[in-house]
Amino acid sequence: MKFCSDCGDKVNLEVPQGDNVLRHVCSACGMIHYQNPNMVVGTLVEHDHKVLLCKRAIEPRYGLWTLPAGFMENDETTMQAAQRETREEACADVELVQLFTMFSLPHINQVYMLYRANLKTPEFSPGPESLEVELFDEANIPWEDMAFPVIAESLKLFFRDRDAGHFNTWTGAMIKQDNNPPVFNVELLGDND
Amino acid sequence: MKFCSDCGDKVNLEVPQGDNVLRHVCSACGMIHYQNPNMVVGTLVEHDHKVLLCKRAIEPRYGLWTLPAGFMENDETTMQAAQRETREEACADVELVQLFTMFSLPHINQVYMLYRANLKTPEFSPGPESLEVELFDEANIPWEDMAFPVIAESLKLFFRDRDAGHFNTWTGAMIKQDNNPPVFNVELLGDND
Repeated sequence: MKFCSDCGDKVNLEVPQGDNVLRHVCSACGMIHYQNPNMVVGTLVEHDHKVLLCKRAIEPRYGLWTLPAGFMENDETTMQAAQRETREEACADVELVQLFTMFSLPHINQVYMLYRANLKTPEFSPGPESLEVELFDEANIPWEDMAFPVIAESLKLFFRDRDAGHFNTWTGAMIKQDNNPPVFNVELLGDND
Repeated sequence: MKFCSDCGDKVNLEVPQGDNVLRHVCSACGMIHYQNPNMVVGTLVEHDHKVLLCKRAIEPRYGLWTLPAGFMENDETTMQAAQRETREEACADVELVQLFTMFSLPHINQVYMLYRANLKTPEFSPGPESLEVELFDEANIPWEDMAFPVIAESLKLFFRDRDAGHFNTWTGAMIKQDNNPPVFNVELLGDND
């Protein structure tokens, strides 16, 4: 951010009075421009003991597999966002069951929320942002071709909970370590019991 | 938003190619400025069978009661945000137990997350944004002087779950109706069982 979105003048990085964080503050009108994390919301759809994955037709991670998910928009709820993204990316109409994972990804200022969901009708196909949409059983998940670590982590928790016979709502964070290739520390708050 | 935060030129409202939502698009450099909901994160602290409330020392709702909560910042996790806000507003050091409620408030483009938490030490006092910080038992909750409907709703769910002997993680939305005074429809996704 270089310019004030309200008056067009230059912004400076400074700590406003009563604050303790550097903010973009307009040098002319004084407006403080706060920057906050974004929510990415989607679904983990189970059907016939399989899960629905989408092969990405867009960057980043073109050609790799993910769950249907995307940025939450203004004027909608997290549940509406999850259903909308599933419709857009997998042409699937779903009923939400439960918030399953909510992971903070502080290195990219995102919070990733995935809801467990069921297909209302057994129909799905690639939307414009997907190359393929397919149901996978656990044995055939393309673990080596997953687009994002947070998706792989959520799928692992899903299969673990399914084996245990009880689905939790997991809240946690994936903390990027200084490694190349990137390695994440997964922090989980614990289950709900 | 009237000006591009990247180049300072004027922005127009238009639907970018491949999109279906009106966005602020720069007339000069073409940058699309997405606007997304913000997260408000806080805690519902229980101690000695009482809950910790803060009386607001700031607008909006100066002088009314709320739970310690505030906007999530970049570079932190939702859990860190919840603990930070509790430190700032109630000078209390807490251990998080569980995500308890997550309510979408689409009329103000916020998602409100409250974690159940315990005091690490039995110490608390008003931070700069609070006039008072007090423990209330259920019978003495100042229901008529609550700052925000989402806080009252979360407290009701807390006492209901405590009576039932099991705390869920509630995901829902509060949909503002066209009433004056404002009335909300509370949508809940259901419990985790």
